[in-house]
Order: sequence, then structure tokens, then C-alpha cells
Amino acid sequence: MTTLDGGAPRRLSLPEGQSVDLRLVLARLRDRGPQAVSELSEELNVSRSKIDRDVAELVRLDLVRRGGPTPSTGGRPSRIVGLSPTLHFLGVDIGATSLAVGLTNGYLEVADFVEEASDVRRGPEPVIERTIALITKLTKSIDRRTVIGIGVGVPGPVSFRDGKPVAPPIMPGWDAWPVRDILSQRLGLPVTVDNDVNIMALGERHAGVARGVADLLFVKIGTGIGCGIISRGAIHRGVNGCAGDIGHIRVRESTTLCHCGRTGCLESEFGGAALARRATAAGRSGESLFLNEVLTEKGELTAEDVGRASVAGDPVSTQLIRDGGQLLGQVLSGLVNFFNPLMIVVGGGLSKLGHLLIAEIRSVTFNRSTPLATSSLSIVASELGGQAGVIGAAFLASETFLGTVWQA
Amino acid sequence: MTTLDGGAPRRLSLPEGQSVDLRLVLARLRDRGPQAVSELSEELNVSRSKIDRDVAELVRLDLVRRGGPTPSTGGRPSRIVGLSPTLHFLGVDIGATSLAVGLTNGYLEVADFVEEASDVRRGPEPVIERTIALITKLTKSIDRRTVIGIGVGVPGPVSFRDGKPVAPPIMPGWDAWPVRDILSQRLGLPVTVDNDVNIMALGERHAGVARGVADLLFVKIGTGIGCGIISRGAIHRGVNGCAGDIGHIRVRESTTLCHCGRTGCLESEFGGAALARRATAAGRSGESLFLNEVLTEKGELTAEDVGRASVAGDPVSTQLIRDGGQLLGQVLSGLVNFFNPLMIVVGGGLSKLGHLLIAEIRSVTFNRSTPLATSSLSIVASELGGQAGVIGAAFLASETFLGTVWQA
Repeated sequence: MTTLDGGAPRRLSLPEGQSVDLRLVLARLRDRGPQAVSELSEELNVSRSKIDRDVAELVRLDLVRRGGPTPSTGGRPSRIVGLSPTLHFLGVDIGATSLAVGLTNGYLEVADFVEEASDVRRGPEPVIERTIALITKLTKSIDRRTVIGIGVGVPGPVSFRDGKPVAPPIMPGWDAWPVRDILSQRLGLPVTVDNDVNIMALGERHAGVARGVADLLFVKIGTGIGCGIISRGAIHRGVNGCAGDIGHIRVRESTTLCHCGRTGCLESEFGGAALARRATAAGRSGESLFLNEVLTEKGELTAEDVGRASVAGDPVSTQLIRDGGQLLGQVLSGLVNFFNPLMIVVGGGLSKLGHLLIAEIRSVTFNRSTPLATSSLSIVASELGGQAGVIGAAFLASETFLGTVWQA
Repeated sequence: MTTLDGGAPRRLSLPEGQSVDLRLVLARLRDRGPQAVSELSEELNVSRSKIDRDVAELVRLDLVRRGGPTPSTGGRPSRIVGLSPTLHFLGVDIGATSLAVGLTNGYLEVADFVEEASDVRRGPEPVIERTIALITKLTKSIDRRTVIGIGVGVPGPVSFRDGKPVAPPIMPGWDAWPVRDILSQRLGLPVTVDNDVNIMALGERHAGVARGVADLLFVKIGTGIGCGIISRGAIHRGVNGCAGDIGHIRVRESTTLCHCGRTGCLESEFGGAALARRATAAGRSGESLFLNEVLTEKGELTAEDVGRASVAGDPVSTQLIRDGGQLLGQVLSGLVNFFNPLMIVVGGGLSKLGHLLIAEIRSVTFNRSTPLATSSLSIVASELGGQAGVIGAAFLASETFLGTVWQA
């Protein structure tokens, strides 16, 4: 096994016995930023002398660095401690049509980020080669031994334990392909693989609009529709790794065939592909003169065209977006009753359709769910946009390092 | 504070420092039964000398007792250890129309059980008085200082942290009534309160058909319809304690008003009350001669009458049950896609309608969910029936004792 630059990987296993407390200290610094030792002692409910020993051990491992003393409040002076600047994580977000890689510090703040067009349907080998090339590029200017681990998101169900996609419908050639083991072997680093919507949920929870929310749904509306589920602060993956696959929930009678072979699925009635299809039909038939013009000019219509047409005042496009928001709201109202989340974050390409879509989703969801289940609910747009995935993937890598990842 | 017999409560707090391991040992014995020390060491991945010390400490506290040596396999002889017979828990299941109390040993096996008709609508005071009377009766023949804690289920949403019902629709007078604190004060014991469907899910997971299942839905079909959710081995309660309230998911256009004020809810179209209502209509109109006869004879129809009529060959009753199973299957198919559970357990009074209902639920759920989400799914009837609740409540009490309850 070789590392990125051929050296031996940095030894970072925590000493036995103390390890639980050391992990709690590291996780707290990661999630809250630098803190006074006295604060750590108080909030982790561990004696000051124990925390002093833990911090000393973490400093020895160069995971933590001491800063200056905090302003005195009358008691013993306390020092600020923070994560070592030599800690780095890598987050990889493999989308259906894009590939993004982010390099983060120990706090999972993105220090460097690259994104390029990609096609997951080309199969695993070329995509993984490009991933390695981008990682090599991003880590050129740092000591590569400071990279602790890599998190990877893929656009399909994942067997989390095995680090492999499982029967992913839009990823030909990836089924059971050992993403984790191959990347790990090639780069000499621990790799953790998860579904792309799951890592987006983790990203928004760590650094975005859902910071610290324990019960959360992240709904991605892209070409298809998927949902990341956080229950009690951690991802709920389900027994086959396909929890959150809400795109094939039946929403109405329909004659349109979904790629799953059924009709009336949320994803075949709404989502990027469905919206483009319905807009094209409205343009062809002349039902919308606006869409007809764009179609004639460009030869095809995308979901973005519908968004632009709606903003420009095309009532047919506005109706298409409202109809989609209603279908999604219908599904979400059931999930709100079932799951009782504090927050639903709406992300993915179609979330750029703007206020109209979110407003429609809110309207139906709040109207149809029970009053108690919506009493503290908010439905909001993603804050991190395209970087939610890489931040969440880096979070996953840090969880693997801390040894607290749930082995589902 | 007084205990049941006026003495001081037994001191059972675990010594600091070691407590995490001691709790793991206790939980393992509770869930797996008596084990060899060598087995504990292996399965908990703790050194044999550490386990020996832990067991000695637990014996000193009279939480664990040593049995005879296990058959030699060539190595060091190992002793069987088990939970002390002096450990007891109490499980209380407050239903809409019944009150059940169970006394269990440390393994949560029911040693004694009483159940009586009750009406939760009479308000908290009389129901809690009867609960205390039943507990007093059940604990008459044991040393009451051996009772470690009490778990209580109530038929409505619960703020788990506060131990109080929250806006429970069928429990007038119970809203924010401090069930936990009052019972705890009266009996001098730790009390934990949860929703009744949640404790049933825990019961089936600990001792029933869902033993050890990490991702599980328990669907109770009684007068109303509710769902207990287990994610990654623990209850998902949601931010307001009302997760699993699936009875108000919209299933179809309807003119029947639900008690929630909307129409088309699962609960107003199916469930005990809905089935009785629809059967009465079919009896009155003469659509079913069978139901008409029973109605004339008894003056009213219940869900059980529909079950009996179906078994006796009444096609209208069979159709009513199938229709209900289809509506429930429609909701469950969406939840299977969303949650990807390993198992759905169907319990509650209406589950006694038998194979026809379960078969219909299975048929729709398997047909409409994605192949991956159903690849390891089973949909089965509750095994513990009326005792699922008290066993789950006792489990909750044991979790509180072990200090591992998630403070949602």
C-alpha cells in the first residue's frame, strides 16, 4: 500500500482506554471550533484534570494545538485549544453528470475545491481515474501525510458496510464495484462511501442551514428525486442502503412510464427529466408560445428553461412548477407525519427554480400534515448548494477516523 | 419520597469510570441470556481480566450471579454468569380502552401480568390510581426493593424528555399532565414514559418476532392506526414525539370526515372505527345480508364482527378488509421506499382479522415498493400480541436504568 506521495501513512490510531474521551474532544472541536479547556471540561462533563491529560495526549499526537489563554473570569486561567492545521480531509461528490472534490481542514472548512463535468454512465474506471487526478491536484501544495481520510458520495444506493454501490439504476457498471477498497488501495488512505443525498444531508447538518439539527430530511430534486434521512443525529441508511429513495413513491394515476417500469412515480411526474419532458410537450403543442419559441431556437428544453420561462411570465411554466411542488408536497406531508423532522432542506439543481417551488412545497406540506408534526417544522432551501456534498463526504471521513460511524 | 413499601430505594448507580463496560455487560446478558465469561470477553472485545473485574463488581452490586463452569474446550474453564433473580422491572401499557401491567425479571420475561378494561378518556387521575393499585398487587409477593424501574406507554404523542403526553387527541385531560413525575413520586422509582406503539415496537424487538432487528416498523391497527419506528436499533421519536402518526396520511378522495378535521385520512378510511362504520352502513342498506342480520341482532357492529362475517363467507366483509389492507399497503409501500426497513410487524386489535388482511397488505406493499427496498423485507404479524406493550415498557425501564436512553 502506498500513500499519495509514496511514504508510509501517518499513524493515527488513538491509544486504547482513553480513546472514547479523546474522540469526544476531537468531535466537539470539529463541530464547535476552538474552545477553552474549561469549556470542554464543563460541556463534556469530564473533570478538568482528565481534560488536561486528554489535551496533552492529543497535542502529542499533533491532532490538537494550544492557543493563548482566555480572558480570566476569576478562576484558573484556561487555554484555548483547536484542531491542528495539519489535519486534512477529502470529500468527493460523484454526481450523475458532475464530479466535485474538496479539500478541507479539520473543521471541514473547504480550503480548495474543483468541479468538472463527468458522466457516471461511463462506468467506474474512468470516473475513479479522474477522481484520483483531481485529488492529486488538490493535495499538491500540502504535506500529503496530513490527509486523514476520504469520503465519497455516489448517485445510487450503497452497501455502507462493503463500500460498494448496490444495484444503482443510473450507474451502469458500478453494481458491487469496490469503490472503497480500490480508492483506498490506490491512495493508501481510509475511504468511506455513501449515497450522494446522505452526504449532502450531513454537509447541511455540519456547516449549512441544518446545523446541529437531530431529525432532518434533505430532499434533492435533480434529474431524479432522493432524500437523505438523519435520525437522532446520524444517517438512517436502511437495511439495503436505499432508504430515502422517495422518487418511486406513487403520487397519482398516470400513463407516463417511469424508468423503474411503473407509472405514477414522483420522479416520472416531477424532477428534472419529467419537467423537461412536460415542457417539451407544452412547447411542441403550442400550449405555451414562450416554450415553443425556446424549443424552436434551442432544439430542446431543460428544467432551467422552465424556470426562466416562469420568471419571464409564462403561465404554463409556472403551472408546471406548481404542479411539481404539489406532488412533492403531497409525498412530504406523509413523511412529516411519519418522521416528524425539525427541518426539511430542499437542494439539488431544481431547487434553483426558486421561491415558487419552495412556496408550493411548503403550502401543501403544512396544509396536509398534522398540526403537532408541523409545530416546529421549517422547510428551507439548501445553503451550501454544490458544496454540501463534499463537506458531508469530508464529515463522513472524519467520522470514520473518529471510529464512531455506525456500521449499518 | 417513599418506595412501594416505605423503605429507602435500593442504591443502584454504577461506579464511575467503569460504568460504560458494566452497562454493556448488563445489556448483553439482558438481551442474550446467561453467558460464559469467556463469551462476554470475546463478544464485547474486552480482555478477560477486565471482564473478570467487571463481573466481580456486578456480583458485589447483586446485579449479576455466577453459575457453574461451562464444559471445558481445552482453555481456561469459564463460568456462566447471569442476571440476579433480584432484578425486576414493571411495564405499564395504558391503552385507549384497557390497562395492562407486567412484572418482569432482569431478562424482561413476564413473571406476572394483569389486564383490565379501562377508559383513558376518564382522565389521568383515575387511570394512574388503578395503575398504582395493579402495581401494588403485582409486587405483593416480591421484595419491592428489587424493582428497578417502571416503563409506561400511553396512547398518544409523548414529550419523552419531559415524561408527559403532548396534545394527545384521544386522551382528554392528559395534555402535559406529568405522568412520569407523579408516578415516580408516588412509587419512589424511576419512571420512563413513551408512546404505546413505540413500546410495542421495543417489545417485539426484544422478545418477539423482530428480535434484534435494527430497522423496523411496528404498525398497530386498533381503533386508530399508528406506527412505531426503530432506526439503527433505537426508537425514532421525532422532534415533537409524534413520529409514526401515519393515521392521518391522505390515502384517497373521500367525503368521510376524520376526527382530525380533514377527509381521506388512512385512519378515517380504515382502522377499527372506520371498519365498524362501513360495516354498519353495509348492514343497514342490506348490501350485506349477513351484516344486516348481525346488526339487527346486536344493535351495533364492531371490526370483530366484520372479521367473523368474512370467515363465514360474507363477500362484502371480505371486500371491506381487502380494501383496508390495500389502503394500508399503499401507505406502507411509500414508507418502505423511504425507510427501507428489514421488517414490518403488524399488531393491534385488527391484526386479528387474520391472514386475509396481512396478505393484502403484503401484496400491495411488495408490488408498489422498489425491488431493492423489498429485497430483504418481511411483513409479519405480531408474536407477543397483548404483552408486546408491557415487555417493551419494561425494556424502556431497563434502558433508563442502564443510562443509555437517547434523550430526544
